[in-house]
Amino acid sequence: MNDMRNVTFDKNLDKEKTKTETKAMLKEIGDLQYQMYAESKRSLLIILQGLDASGKDGLTRGLLDYCNPVGLMVQSFKKPTPLEYSHDFLWRVHPHVPPRGVIQVFIRSHYEDILVPTVEELFPPEKIEERFQIINGFEKLLEQNGTRVLKFFLNVSKEAQLERLNERLENPEKYWKHNDGDWDTRSRYDEYQKVYDTIFDRCNYIPWHFVPADTNWQKLHYVAKVVHKTLKDFDLQWPPLKSEKFTTK
Amino acid sequence: MNDMRNVTFDKNLDKEKTKTETKAMLKEIGDLQYQMYAESKRSLLIILQGLDASGKDGLTRGLLDYCNPVGLMVQSFKKPTPLEYSHDFLWRVHPHVPPRGVIQVFIRSHYEDILVPTVEELFPPEKIEERFQIINGFEKLLEQNGTRVLKFFLNVSKEAQLERLNERLENPEKYWKHNDGDWDTRSRYDEYQKVYDTIFDRCNYIPWHFVPADTNWQKLHYVAKVVHKTLKDFDLQWPPLKSEKFTTK
Repeated sequence: MNDMRNVTFDKNLDKEKTKTETKAMLKEIGDLQYQMYAESKRSLLIILQGLDASGKDGLTRGLLDYCNPVGLMVQSFKKPTPLEYSHDFLWRVHPHVPPRGVIQVFIRSHYEDILVPTVEELFPPEKIEERFQIINGFEKLLEQNGTRVLKFFLNVSKEAQLERLNERLENPEKYWKHNDGDWDTRSRYDEYQKVYDTIFDRCNYIPWHFVPADTNWQKLHYVAKVVHKTLKDFDLQWPPLKSEKFTTK
Repeated sequence: MNDMRNVTFDKNLDKEKTKTETKAMLKEIGDLQYQMYAESKRSLLIILQGLDASGKDGLTRGLLDYCNPVGLMVQSFKKPTPLEYSHDFLWRVHPHVPPRGVIQVFIRSHYEDILVPTVEELFPPEKIEERFQIINGFEKLLEQNGTRVLKFFLNVSKEAQLERLNERLENPEKYWKHNDGDWDTRSRYDEYQKVYDTIFDRCNYIPWHFVPADTNWQKLHYVAKVVHKTLKDFDLQWPPLKSEKFTTK
């Protein structure tokens, strides 16, 4: 397990310096995203996992601030509907993987189909074990087809989570985010962390990135850094002119 | 026909003043979009139509600059695939209409299924006439279900179009936008304008907004104004706290 696994706040970061660096990376991410869209050769799937109130929505907004929505897709996965339940657990996920040129963000993902059934003991352990293998196969399939998969675990402390859940009860502009169920889930914080450990162990063909998620600025910094490096490493090129009528001047 | 139908540049607008006004509106659009997402009662479908190089992609980016990608969707409709052709012409469109709370942008739309078949004479006129009725019914269906439909025609002059198509041959960062077919279409500029006139006449249950599209700043201003007013008129409310455990403090 990576030594960042249990870090919810990184004491080594200077706030102002970090924010400046983050902003510069975000701007470059915007440029690179558009070039990736132009090139249309590969795609990027960003999977955000984390407990309730770990700040997945806010992070998505910050991360994509300088991107062109034409080449972006964001998909939140909520509790499966009856129709979704009547299919295999990847049925609702697969249609949302990004086509070439596109960055897709999953807010929650197929990992919820490990987390909830394990904690709620909906299935026998053998079935959960099978799902690990199925997920590994699925992520390999995507990578083989030119989709880079980046997996982030937003690690929020019990204390910071409590503060944010409370804010949803106090700020009228956040009432809509409140869900009684989040408080039940919170009471099982340690159980969820334990299932996550198993996930990090079994589904590590594509590595997990651990993000200290107690503050928005650290969260954004950590994720931006990985996304920025990934896009840089793509060594993107502007495509040549494709024409039967014209030649480049 | 609205007297703006043939305007490609609005001489009455002051550039600097307009840009300042537009920016203020875009920021408010961002706030309103997020509140609409929170409220999750209605949705907005923005349809962008216009000839090649009328600037639909760039407009989309500018318009949504302050919006949260979590509640946004953008769909470009290209030439139909064989699978899409084997279905009715709304089959590929319908899955992309916005769910409650979401702003969806269509870059091109079902109107392409009027434009191309008419100019290319793929169908007899009766079939085209039927499609007008089908489209009117489809848009009514959306409005009845809480989706406001805004239809924009981006009107670019022959001269400005030529300039932009040429840029795609000259600027290596724009080569990827070049398509020989756009030059064939350009040679039929007047024919396309004529079909658009028929569309504005037959499909006016939901009114068209005519946008002078020779400059990016005017285009953005016109569209932002309509979207801003539409969102303001929604009279959006932050939802009340829904809880069986907690009461508001």
